[in-house]
Amino acid sequence: MDNFADRLTAAMLGKRSQLCVGLDPRVSGMPATLVKKHRAGVQEGGGSGRQAVAACFEEFCYEIIEAVSPHAAAVKIQLACFEPYGPPGMRAFQHVCDLASEAGLIVIADAKRGDIAISAQAYSAAYLGRAEGLNGPVRPLRVDAMTVNPLFGTDGVAPFLEDCRRFGKGIFVLVKTSNPGSVEFQDLHVQGDGLFYEQVAARVDSWGEGLAGESGYSSVGAVIGATQPDILASLRETLPRAVFLVPGAGAQGAGAAEAAAAFDKKGLGALITASRSIIYAGGGGKFAARAAEAARRMQQELWSSTH
Amino acid sequence: MDNFADRLTAAMLGKRSQLCVGLDPRVSGMPATLVKKHRAGVQEGGGSGRQAVAACFEEFCYEIIEAVSPHAAAVKIQLACFEPYGPPGMRAFQHVCDLASEAGLIVIADAKRGDIAISAQAYSAAYLGRAEGLNGPVRPLRVDAMTVNPLFGTDGVAPFLEDCRRFGKGIFVLVKTSNPGSVEFQDLHVQGDGLFYEQVAARVDSWGEGLAGESGYSSVGAVIGATQPDILASLRETLPRAVFLVPGAGAQGAGAAEAAAAFDKKGLGALITASRSIIYAGGGGKFAARAAEAARRMQQELWSSTH
Repeated sequence: MDNFADRLTAAMLGKRSQLCVGLDPRVSGMPATLVKKHRAGVQEGGGSGRQAVAACFEEFCYEIIEAVSPHAAAVKIQLACFEPYGPPGMRAFQHVCDLASEAGLIVIADAKRGDIAISAQAYSAAYLGRAEGLNGPVRPLRVDAMTVNPLFGTDGVAPFLEDCRRFGKGIFVLVKTSNPGSVEFQDLHVQGDGLFYEQVAARVDSWGEGLAGESGYSSVGAVIGATQPDILASLRETLPRAVFLVPGAGAQGAGAAEAAAAFDKKGLGALITASRSIIYAGGGGKFAARAAEAARRMQQELWSSTH
Repeated sequence: MDNFADRLTAAMLGKRSQLCVGLDPRVSGMPATLVKKHRAGVQEGGGSGRQAVAACFEEFCYEIIEAVSPHAAAVKIQLACFEPYGPPGMRAFQHVCDLASEAGLIVIADAKRGDIAISAQAYSAAYLGRAEGLNGPVRPLRVDAMTVNPLFGTDGVAPFLEDCRRFGKGIFVLVKTSNPGSVEFQDLHVQGDGLFYEQVAARVDSWGEGLAGESGYSSVGAVIGATQPDILASLRETLPRAVFLVPGAGAQGAGAAEAAAAFDKKGLGALITASRSIIYAGGGGKFAARAAEAARRMQQELWSSTH
């Protein structure tokens, strides 16, 4: 199946799940057992401070992935959590992508990249495409889709669209984010034409035109926060072919009821993302079992409220 | 000197330079001699395709830095060029930051990051602050400032401001980019209140309030493309304390005359960035000498037209 939206839809139907687990590992959230183990590694001279964190995050994410993979259709891996740890951090990111992909999960790199065309092309090559090496292309990452910041306009997004087309990948464009400050710029009234984010939404619709699959959905999706259900509902109308990636459920305050507006009548077309409420569900050394339970509960709550 | 804008202003006065050289290494731009050398490394089994590119970029940037450091106040290192090469790419990025810093250049990470607060905090820790390790903070990068995407609003920018304050760092917020597509969203008319980018500019001004140095400039600067001189001039009026980072000179079409509007009456307050016109000035094996000459010419053209 070559189209990203079709692959995602099949994964959702196969698992009866609209859940996307956000992998946002942070030192402050690591279980004490893992911290102790990897801290000992540093003290014995087994690596730098960055390597210890990277190894700790990798082990943590491995356990979470194994635990949640029966219940989630996708994982969204937050680059911001890995980037501060330099090369070891990026190696851990890559291994987590590999494992999630092997576990049968759709892998979304939450990168929120955006730049002028020539640099956007490089970012797209990094996650979706093939970066040029000295002897042909270098090995690509095992990533199905990434998040993209639209501020540069169509020419900044075009390189990502091109790689979606060539390699069966997807993007989720930031339309309306889940944070309180999103109102400042995204909700500005545009003269005679609605709100700023509605203008972005209109572009997302046109960017997705040539990339629709058999599912009716396009490989060009939209990030829309769950924290404003009325906005979700109205954008569901105006963006009929965009898959929504909906953060803000769980720790950010929204539940299955708020997120319901993101789905079409068949209960498809949206991935609801929860990060902290699942990966930091507690349990100390039994964190993976707790994460599995939190993921299972959320998957069932979402599916049963829409089917 | 603890304030980033003061440090930058001193560097500009010390070198009589408003030039920022953009380090955007790409495989297609590498001199044949370097490609041959590093390709041989791969064929002899000395590393992966990614390592070969990273080593090639590193050597290229080292030579460029040595060549341009007498003429440039700063370098802007494009993350998009390094990220596709994974951990070796990020290691090369780090080494290039180290060398530029040792060469006395102000180092700007062109990252264009932006996210909700908790993730913005992680991006800020990666480039400006101190990321948490398992035994205290990990080693920071030698970066003076980074570029930031403002789409998330004040709560998404606040973590970067906090690290500017704590660590004497700077940010350049995307206000009006140099690409043709920047008109699509950035130039939208906001009801009763000018254009979208003017709203962003107003926030940049208020974000910079507490971060002004003795130079009169703030550690919160603005990215404004050189391709529209009238916009540069009008924003120079409304953003009196923001240092402008002005891309689009050289290969993107603007010259010293177009960029002149970015400066204050003393010829300060702006860094003009040129990438391709300097680092790819040609010369084959003598690329560094050509880059030095292109940088020297641009530095003199800029300085003499404003002093």
